Amino acid sequence: MSMQDHDVVGIGNAIVDIIGQCDDAFLSQHGRTKGSMELVDAITVANLYDAMGPGIEISGGSAANTMVGVASFGGKAGFIAKTADDEFGKVFRHDIRAAGVTFNTAAAASGGDPTGRSLILVTPDGQRTMNTMLGVSPQLGAEEVDADLVRSGRILYLEGYLFDRPQAKAAFRQAADIAAKAGRQVAMTLSDPFCVDRHRAEFQQFVRSSVDILFANEAEIASLYEANTFEDAARRAQSETKLAAITRSEKGSVILSGGRTIEVAAAPVAKVVDTTGAGDLYAAGFLYGVAIGRDLETAGRLGSLAAAEVISHVGARPQMKLAELAQKAGLL
Amino acid sequence: MSMQDHDVVGIGNAIVDIIGQCDDAFLSQHGRTKGSMELVDAITVANLYDAMGPGIEISGGSAANTMVGVASFGGKAGFIAKTADDEFGKVFRHDIRAAGVTFNTAAAASGGDPTGRSLILVTPDGQRTMNTMLGVSPQLGAEEVDADLVRSGRILYLEGYLFDRPQAKAAFRQAADIAAKAGRQVAMTLSDPFCVDRHRAEFQQFVRSSVDILFANEAEIASLYEANTFEDAARRAQSETKLAAITRSEKGSVILSGGRTIEVAAAPVAKVVDTTGAGDLYAAGFLYGVAIGRDLETAGRLGSLAAAEVISHVGARPQMKLAELAQKAGLL
Repeated sequence: MSMQDHDVVGIGNAIVDIIGQCDDAFLSQHGRTKGSMELVDAITVANLYDAMGPGIEISGGSAANTMVGVASFGGKAGFIAKTADDEFGKVFRHDIRAAGVTFNTAAAASGGDPTGRSLILVTPDGQRTMNTMLGVSPQLGAEEVDADLVRSGRILYLEGYLFDRPQAKAAFRQAADIAAKAGRQVAMTLSDPFCVDRHRAEFQQFVRSSVDILFANEAEIASLYEANTFEDAARRAQSETKLAAITRSEKGSVILSGGRTIEVAAAPVAKVVDTTGAGDLYAAGFLYGVAIGRDLETAGRLGSLAAAEVISHVGARPQMKLAELAQKAGLL
Repeated sequence: MSMQDHDVVGIGNAIVDIIGQCDDAFLSQHGRTKGSMELVDAITVANLYDAMGPGIEISGGSAANTMVGVASFGGKAGFIAKTADDEFGKVFRHDIRAAGVTFNTAAAASGGDPTGRSLILVTPDGQRTMNTMLGVSPQLGAEEVDADLVRSGRILYLEGYLFDRPQAKAAFRQAADIAAKAGRQVAMTLSDPFCVDRHRAEFQQFVRSSVDILFANEAEIASLYEANTFEDAARRAQSETKLAAITRSEKGSVILSGGRTIEVAAAPVAKVVDTTGAGDLYAAGFLYGVAIGRDLETAGRLGSLAAAEVISHVGARPQMKLAELAQKAGLL
């Protein structure tokens, strides 16, 4: 495969989101914690699907959403993830390519696990509660990590969720090694406080040894360092990372780098409709800004802008061209 | 099966909509006529899907959308249609039941044609151009028409699109016979001017012999009677139907009954986002109004209200509870 340069290459789960509305009582009845991401098995996902209202299917997946965001800013993005040879897999592959992202990972042979999916329950306050069946997604083998594609990217972006399964974790580490040897930057998102909780020691070690740019929200960074206050967590991140961007919902984000702390405000949103993808799209703007050589504050503002766009509608992928929004805002 | 009473029971195609944005140039390049519905084969649908941008999957199907609308008004609706034992079939069956519609038609065994789907291309003016692969949908057999369910409905609602395939047409006629023998009203929508063109003589005959309530838009009624002006078409409809409701987009609708002509204004819409489902939801409001014994003008206004809701967002099924909207508008 001949390789154009990529600004960012991502590796993560391939997920189709099934988004429905519900009220808080529905979450309680089904024992769900509002705002969380829970991994569920096929039976649980089937039962919850039976109980929930009508849905809308939209391609998702954390790092996949981020790569689509980079492409929407006008950047060149690539993605590596495992889909099945089924209809949801076709939907995922179509949507990511149609968004302009390089995607060449072969689908698994039919007859095995299905393409991953997440039942996303959105409450009237716009909060999302995710119930994810990974399906075939963690069966991404280390041998399926396209080394040329990884080397072609200025930044490799890794989705923390992959740490939840040994085979995918091996692929994740392999990609990081390839990128490091090629002199590329390695970025990672912690993805979820409970995921961090399940793999804290490994995450801490990996962040110290292999990560150039760390993304996390307040709950995730607190979980990583078992910190009781945001200030404590930020102090640890400042000393243990080269560059960290920590998102704080409506309080914006804090960028930590070489002893400096840069605070970036959230971009205004008329009405928060669905917070799914806020962190993913913040990472898209930030990574794009860093990849094209902008200063960290501008990168953070590109992140805020992209996050604001995605939470103003249903679904975790941008509906407007982010490059145009950024130009209007004077950021590009 | 024990049967509660239903206000309306529909029979039609089971379709999952794949909705994407495009510009007018894309339609020209692919030889598509803006605003039309075209039946396409598996290869055409695959090629068009490859070429189009990212999509959103939402359950659709004309009469299915109408039944979901009736349920959203608080009515009791049932639906009969053929799905396959695949992921899109699961999506369709889940969504229609989750909307409160009685749906019991068995899925076809796996290995045959897939569940029907429509690639819907929405241009910036909100117009939709539909490219529909019916898949397994027309394989609904006459023996699969649940006679008890049909008899349980005050009104049977038939989707004209079914006339396009002999097996489905037989099921359609069988349902109409069952309803007529049980003393139920039979309603039909013409669905599409090109569908009418393909089956004009049969449609004319069926309308005269078997239809109590006819739904059509201007192009469809003109095609049915090969009329050059709306007035000519309306005159023919007045003389050949018991009750006809003809939709005219932003000009509202005209209801023809027993020599009377009732004009109903369109309900205001802040911004037309996607016209898909406008006619389907007009029919939902009108049928619900008739089923609960409201006068024809009120039925028409319920139709206008439902159409306005559905064209204000992407997708052909209501996102707000139509019963609440109608109460606010003083119609219920």
